[in-house]
Amino acid sequence: MKKEIKQTEIKELGEFGLIDRLTKNIKIKNESTVKGVGDDAAILHFGEKQIVVSSDLLTEGVHFNLMYVPLKHLGYKSVVVNLSDVCAMNATPKQIVVNIALSGKFSVEAVEELYSGIHLACEKYGVDLVGGDTTSSMTGLTISVTVIGEADKKDIILRGGAKANDLLCVTGDLGGAYMGLQLLERENEVFKVNEKMQPQLEGYDYILERQLKPEARIDIVSALYKLGIKPTSMIDISDGLSSEIHHLCKNSNLGCSVFEDKIPMDFQTKKMAEELNINPLVAALNGGEDYELLFTLPLSDYEKIKNDPDFSVIGHMTEASEGINLVTGAGSAIPLVAQGWNHGE
Amino acid sequence: MKKEIKQTEIKELGEFGLIDRLTKNIKIKNESTVKGVGDDAAILHFGEKQIVVSSDLLTEGVHFNLMYVPLKHLGYKSVVVNLSDVCAMNATPKQIVVNIALSGKFSVEAVEELYSGIHLACEKYGVDLVGGDTTSSMTGLTISVTVIGEADKKDIILRGGAKANDLLCVTGDLGGAYMGLQLLERENEVFKVNEKMQPQLEGYDYILERQLKPEARIDIVSALYKLGIKPTSMIDISDGLSSEIHHLCKNSNLGCSVFEDKIPMDFQTKKMAEELNINPLVAALNGGEDYELLFTLPLSDYEKIKNDPDFSVIGHMTEASEGINLVTGAGSAIPLVAQGWNHGE
Repeated sequence: MKKEIKQTEIKELGEFGLIDRLTKNIKIKNESTVKGVGDDAAILHFGEKQIVVSSDLLTEGVHFNLMYVPLKHLGYKSVVVNLSDVCAMNATPKQIVVNIALSGKFSVEAVEELYSGIHLACEKYGVDLVGGDTTSSMTGLTISVTVIGEADKKDIILRGGAKANDLLCVTGDLGGAYMGLQLLERENEVFKVNEKMQPQLEGYDYILERQLKPEARIDIVSALYKLGIKPTSMIDISDGLSSEIHHLCKNSNLGCSVFEDKIPMDFQTKKMAEELNINPLVAALNGGEDYELLFTLPLSDYEKIKNDPDFSVIGHMTEASEGINLVTGAGSAIPLVAQGWNHGE
Repeated sequence: MKKEIKQTEIKELGEFGLIDRLTKNIKIKNESTVKGVGDDAAILHFGEKQIVVSSDLLTEGVHFNLMYVPLKHLGYKSVVVNLSDVCAMNATPKQIVVNIALSGKFSVEAVEELYSGIHLACEKYGVDLVGGDTTSSMTGLTISVTVIGEADKKDIILRGGAKANDLLCVTGDLGGAYMGLQLLERENEVFKVNEKMQPQLEGYDYILERQLKPEARIDIVSALYKLGIKPTSMIDISDGLSSEIHHLCKNSNLGCSVFEDKIPMDFQTKKMAEELNINPLVAALNGGEDYELLFTLPLSDYEKIKNDPDFSVIGHMTEASEGINLVTGAGSAIPLVAQGWNHGE
């Protein structure tokens, strides 16, 4: 006999009942959190540190599709994408505030599932959930997360500090999250045609995890510190490598040469790209959502990172007049075009 | 000849073009803002102050109806409702982060109109807009604002500090925002039936402004300071007086007696209520959106506020065992019921 899981309508609890249920198990982890959920505002205290603050908003149908994204993963990811921005400042995330708007189709259990992912991310990254708003929407689900982090003033890294001839480096590998999304969308299309079809996801666990459960590279912040390296500029890769390179170049008033064959890609990313007849380079350059870090270093730091598999040197900064170029495997330089989000597309 | 105002599709500018256009005129006003818009995160510095953080999310069709709410007013209000939470902590708002999701029906000019209201509120309250996210949605408009404020540790006021026999006070008057909304909805219904009908809004400017352009009572934070008063507990009235009284009582572990005939209401609020056959007391108790402050004071402070028209003493705190009661004009005590937001209703 199939076990029925009880679904509670949100109106049975009401706004305050729902908030109580979602926040009752929160344990404060950071000394800088003076007071969390439960008053008009949270209270934080950072002594002599600088604090950084960043925020992102995810909407159903644009940033995620609940046909194939489990709510727990969605909650986790919505926190991680914000923590990633704090890492990109070379700071440590400490608190988050979460706003959620949801339509009547969601039960209390569904919202709890979403929050279980939020709590899991807080646990893993040692971050305190200190407040937010839960409200209704006419359609769909919207999640807005604001993160607050801290750093010593001297440690903070901006986008604008790169110098000509600096090395351009990325962490991990790129394009996986995009190819994971393509796979999920393909299987979802198959499912829509025939609901009895089971999704064919075997052998692609890595790219699925890149899409569904990305991580923020807080480990890189520690690793750079231990290596005695302070990058001259840094940004996280949320919109795709080409777009982030444009941000670094614009803010540092420089150009850049990026070498096609130096861009790190995982085997599964390339295999899926081949299967779907997509150029994997396009996934790495424009796919986005990898949440790796892109940063620049003086040449003198090269020895410190050259044998570390976490880092790939993919190019170098140039004078602005030379432009932002991709050097192909065959050696020709072509202008690198940035593709951001375009409304309604 | 009617002048055509050029409407630009957002995709003509793209994400980064739109963000540049919306943020190019921002001037930093607070010393605590080290870096605002333009990197992965904003950088703030508060020295030895405590910081407070609060966040709210507004969704189209639930919190506002664009049929009768001008976008500029909406932008202004979405900031003010957050500043109000900081005031309720007896703190000073310093920075905001704004996330917006919007569907393809909005032009660049429409988003600029929304932002002009956001900028106006920042200007009026001396707050810096330091970041956020602008993204697309499948339907409608969602606005999420996070505010950061500062206070000396000794000045912060929580919901939980009230003592038995403390006086319960409110600022300004209540129910106006709700009656303003009823008027706008009535005229909108008339307009839907006959588009040639002009709305009948004369004589109701005050309640319309209460609904469309509320203010945060930062002036009260200063006034209390000058009077040498530190309330024992405080909250802002966003969901309606009865709901906020329940929060104060629950957090302070007390009961309360509120006197019906002491609840301050404006003439226009009462007049509109009569016209629409609504009990004005219901508007004051459950209407919400007045953004006045509700606070408790020791009896010994009564002399300091009794002649100030900004303050009304509406009752007093009791032991929890006595319950939360409304004392009617005829002198009978009836339990006060809190009405929060209920999903899908």
